[in-house]
Amino acid sequence: MSQLRVGVIGYGYWGPNIVRNLYGIEAYSVAALCDTNPAALQKAGRVYPALRTTPDPAEVLESPDIDAVAIVTPVWTHYELARTALENGKHVFVEKPFTSTVRQAEELVELADRKNLRIMVDHTFLFTGAVRKIRELIDKGVLGPLFYFDSSRINLGLFQHDVSVVWDLAPHDLSIMDYVIGTKAEAVVATGGSHFNHQADMAFLTIYFPDNVIAHINVNWLSPVKVRTTLIGGRDKMLVWNDLEADEKIKVYDKGVDVTSREGVYDLLVSYRSGDVWAPKVDQTEALKAELAYFAECVTTGKKPFNDGEAGLSVVRMLEAADQSLAERGKVVLLP
Amino acid sequence: MSQLRVGVIGYGYWGPNIVRNLYGIEAYSVAALCDTNPAALQKAGRVYPALRTTPDPAEVLESPDIDAVAIVTPVWTHYELARTALENGKHVFVEKPFTSTVRQAEELVELADRKNLRIMVDHTFLFTGAVRKIRELIDKGVLGPLFYFDSSRINLGLFQHDVSVVWDLAPHDLSIMDYVIGTKAEAVVATGGSHFNHQADMAFLTIYFPDNVIAHINVNWLSPVKVRTTLIGGRDKMLVWNDLEADEKIKVYDKGVDVTSREGVYDLLVSYRSGDVWAPKVDQTEALKAELAYFAECVTTGKKPFNDGEAGLSVVRMLEAADQSLAERGKVVLLP
Amino acid sequence: MSQLRVGVIGYGYWGPNIVRNLYGIEAYSVAALCDTNPAALQKAGRVYPALRTTPDPAEVLESPDIDAVAIVTPVWTHYELARTALENGKHVFVEKPFTSTVRQAEELVELADRKNLRIMVDHTFLFTGAVRKIRELIDKGVLGPLFYFDSSRINLGLFQHDVSVVWDLAPHDLSIMDYVIGTKAEAVVATGGSHFNHQADMAFLTIYFPDNVIAHINVNWLSPVKVRTTLIGGRDKMLVWNDLEADEKIKVYDKGVDVTSREGVYDLLVSYRSGDVWAPKVDQTEALKAELAYFAECVTTGKKPFNDGEAGLSVVRMLEAADQSLAERGKVVLLP
Amino acid sequence: MSQLRVGVIGYGYWGPNIVRNLYGIEAYSVAALCDTNPAALQKAGRVYPALRTTPDPAEVLESPDIDAVAIVTPVWTHYELARTALENGKHVFVEKPFTSTVRQAEELVELADRKNLRIMVDHTFLFTGAVRKIRELIDKGVLGPLFYFDSSRINLGLFQHDVSVVWDLAPHDLSIMDYVIGTKAEAVVATGGSHFNHQADMAFLTIYFPDNVIAHINVNWLSPVKVRTTLIGGRDKMLVWNDLEADEKIKVYDKGVDVTSREGVYDLLVSYRSGDVWAPKVDQTEALKAELAYFAECVTTGKKPFNDGEAGLSVVRMLEAADQSLAERGKVVLLP
Repeated sequence: MSQLRVGVIGYGYWGPNIVRNLYGIEAYSVAALCDTNPAALQKAGRVYPALRTTPDPAEVLESPDIDAVAIVTPVWTHYELARTALENGKHVFVEKPFTSTVRQAEELVELADRKNLRIMVDHTFLFTGAVRKIRELIDKGVLGPLFYFDSSRINLGLFQHDVSVVWDLAPHDLSIMDYVIGTKAEAVVATGGSHFNHQADMAFLTIYFPDNVIAHINVNWLSPVKVRTTLIGGRDKMLVWNDLEADEKIKVYDKGVDVTSREGVYDLLVSYRSGDVWAPKVDQTEALKAELAYFAECVTTGKKPFNDGEAGLSVVRMLEAADQSLAERGKVVLLP
Repeated sequence: MSQLRVGVIGYGYWGPNIVRNLYGIEAYSVAALCDTNPAALQKAGRVYPALRTTPDPAEVLESPDIDAVAIVTPVWTHYELARTALENGKHVFVEKPFTSTVRQAEELVELADRKNLRIMVDHTFLFTGAVRKIRELIDKGVLGPLFYFDSSRINLGLFQHDVSVVWDLAPHDLSIMDYVIGTKAEAVVATGGSHFNHQADMAFLTIYFPDNVIAHINVNWLSPVKVRTTLIGGRDKMLVWNDLEADEKIKVYDKGVDVTSREGVYDLLVSYRSGDVWAPKVDQTEALKAELAYFAECVTTGKKPFNDGEAGLSVVRMLEAADQSLAERGKVVLLP
Repeated sequence: MSQLRVGVIGYGYWGPNIVRNLYGIEAYSVAALCDTNPAALQKAGRVYPALRTTPDPAEVLESPDIDAVAIVTPVWTHYELARTALENGKHVFVEKPFTSTVRQAEELVELADRKNLRIMVDHTFLFTGAVRKIRELIDKGVLGPLFYFDSSRINLGLFQHDVSVVWDLAPHDLSIMDYVIGTKAEAVVATGGSHFNHQADMAFLTIYFPDNVIAHINVNWLSPVKVRTTLIGGRDKMLVWNDLEADEKIKVYDKGVDVTSREGVYDLLVSYRSGDVWAPKVDQTEALKAELAYFAECVTTGKKPFNDGEAGLSVVRMLEAADQSLAERGKVVLLP
Repeated sequence: MSQLRVGVIGYGYWGPNIVRNLYGIEAYSVAALCDTNPAALQKAGRVYPALRTTPDPAEVLESPDIDAVAIVTPVWTHYELARTALENGKHVFVEKPFTSTVRQAEELVELADRKNLRIMVDHTFLFTGAVRKIRELIDKGVLGPLFYFDSSRINLGLFQHDVSVVWDLAPHDLSIMDYVIGTKAEAVVATGGSHFNHQADMAFLTIYFPDNVIAHINVNWLSPVKVRTTLIGGRDKMLVWNDLEADEKIKVYDKGVDVTSREGVYDLLVSYRSGDVWAPKVDQTEALKAELAYFAECVTTGKKPFNDGEAGLSVVRMLEAADQSLAERGKVVLLP
């Protein structure tokens, strides 16, 4: 099989991880790297002397020798770069959040469809052993019907100059939530505060799903401690995912409530189950490597990735709704 | 000094703690105990053979030999009992939440004022070593101006048949929040879900304060793990209170963000401080004992307790607002 | 069935727990309580007005209306009291450590045998849900053949004026070790230090068992943190028991090493297993209650308790050996 | 200032870290790399294309263009390589443990002295922020006179085919202990067990120091959990160093015991102090980089490093004593 020729745009914080992993996957040949910052290109040149580098995105986007483009740049540049890539017949791998607006995301999805090209949005967490294990547990019915998803992603900094804490941290939780809950969110409520400029530095999102499923996300750039904890409660079992644990990232609790409602004696009929706790082993393979291998597979076989443009659009829809709700202090915003 | 003659109404879950502590404080003589449940009175009789017991609240509320009444009954009975006690010239110590409605609380506050009687609402946490230490740190300016208060109080059960998780768990956080923030809340947003009946079993409250201070409270009866953690962030320092820690309940972090906003080069001007962590020793005295001693002192000297009817009313106002917001999926509810 | 008439000697730190539990078990009637300290008897009188109290042990030991005696006094008094009780035909429940010397313990065991009376040594931990679960896991072969037992029991204080940290804290671990390992210890090595007087305030014990099983116990009165952790390693699985955890006291690790030794290529043939972790639910019933119920059963049915005089003697043997080894800075002391 | 020309022997597990850091320090030029394994040299060649490589140690040891040699090979090769290096007038940086025997270490120390060359033994931990902070706290008298040092370094594997767990893991603790206690150890007792071959896979060391200071080290290759915890108790304060904590690696406890011994009333005169806890900020700089910079400084200025051959010899002396004690089941072995 011939290799997929990929060009990379952006060699800042995350770009080096993309390039390193592309080099480690046989399905790829890395055709070119673009960054407008000469220092970034120099840095890349020291590690990959043979890699063609350029400060001009057009050299990547329009090159006839390139099959796919990885866009690893700030969010406000995604739309222009991805559109040009698609228009030039290239598949697109793009950082999260997908775009700055719902309108942009919709347009890119439609364009890719029309040209029969793949878009993959880099929601890396979906490829971690932990999230795959959670999805597996839910798919197998271990938790039973879901009740809630409650996630905290808080730490000190890093303040972003172009996006709020919602656009910086919440895409992780929103994409994971979408992936493991599996139904379409109906409405979003967001509250929060900003203490240094107009951008929110802490925010609290509630997302309503069908069948009384509710999600809550707490993101905060002003926490003295780092927390990465998600609780998922089902009727039959509940789990806690603590991503900062070296081992035992996921714990499944055989706990629950049985409530039989009967008029007049209601309170006598609540009972609690509390049994064993179980920490399934979680695969430790690097998530980004698995994701990029999957991208190559999707491009080659024409398979639609599950983290495609639609998935990215869903997250952007909720981010936009959260912004609107935040601006109106918790007003509920319905999703289409 | 003559003793304060106190009658107790209610000997269910919390009543025994009240009676035990009253017996342990010299300022009190326990004059009578009332419970409509004969089994409860029998249980009390075994421990306190000399204690006068009665199933009829009126015997306590109207007794000329009683100076003060401790009301340790379900919230929906507070108003009637407290009003009758006040009308009969008795000081009132009453469980939290103070009343079922703002209107009731306002009426009781007014009645007590008119008759120059004390009301104390049993927000026991305000008398713990941890909360007193937090208040002291804030009063001394150690944290600097506050940014936020974020509290989680989650566990499995115990479902209450007459109140939602908001009225059951949030009063703790709301009263602590009021006590340590020290300004009046301006508005409330609440979201949440109910999975067994019409009562919310999990809820997420945001409370807005002046000067951009924001509070968030996460209460949940369906969590497989018990969490009692409050983060309080200030400009100069931040603290984490984990009430489940046997030692080191409070940790003060010398951490913070310095953001200097300058046009065009914004992102260069964010810097982070990260220094020592300090766990101040926290007094371990039983909170309820300190609170009841303080009640006796307030009644005797005529001093207004800081956890008086007004404090209880403030919490009920926020609970009522939360209920209203919950019913309208996060609509912001302004406080007077 | 008629009740077992029990007399209690000693109402200091632990005595109140014994008396409270005896009152809660139908098989017992509490016939008398003795303590040489009048304040202790007064305190008991307030809680149990009907209980006969006396400062004279002989009134309990020689009373014809008493079937069994619970000896809850300092260790140096155990021998005299237990011997007199046995000579007077009474069954004996005695605090740990059983006696101050091996000779005393042997004599009591022999005396009880001769008079067909039961001795039970109060190794309460053996009746906790955690230890019973560990024993069950080992008995069922879940861990496979055992490799080691390694326990830490450290905290600040409480210094005892009559015994060293070895006699104060190690009996817990030694009795648990005996109970779960199930074979006879062969030899003891002990090291340690004393920093305030001649008594060791920290000590490190190694106990050798047949088949290469080794135990290690770390006891320390001078630790700033409280630790109660025991590791038990088997060929097939390993477990960690952290008694300070509210939930998940026991975790079973599907971990191990497979070493195939082959000349010359030894290092290629080590492999590691690392699978799921599992925290079995542990029964929360009060251990002392279960133990005292078991004592009544043993006395009534004539059954030999597993924590009998022999079990107590085994612990005293190791304590005496540890003292001897400590005095000679780690000299190995063989057990008979 | 001219650069120090250093040759490196050994590019297995640790060698790459040495080479990478040498490249990152201006004081060095990396002159040559030797490894008998061609794959290792190939691997190095890819990262450092300009680096001269050779399978023959003599090319490094005898090269006139090399001032110092870093020996990063298994312990049984250290003596030969270091001796040849010194004989050829080269300074030596050598992995821990320094040598396989005391005799070898003594000879190398003497040889270096005679030829006025520097030896530095790579006890990397001494250059971590944590250990430097502990040393600083002790030097400043914060802890008061020391009582004990108690360290646990346990995990699953990695079995070494040529050394026991004592020689593999204990050198870390022994060198740290030497560094922070500051006096010469007097005697060693070691117990332990081996479950797969003749090498101990778990061991418990006690080291006696003057003035009643005692150290204890627990090393284990068969633990299901990884532990890296050291307790250091002083008269005035006590500290716990948990190296697995991301933040708050060191906690200083204002805790202690005051015992006044007075005949007859001994037990009344024990009192406990328990105050604040404090986690000083710990420098996060890479320890190996600091250590190698210090080596260059020592070589250039002729200063004797504190982790010199004598320090390495002290550790080897204790390892040899531990082996001897282990073989005789805890027999105390005096150090010279």
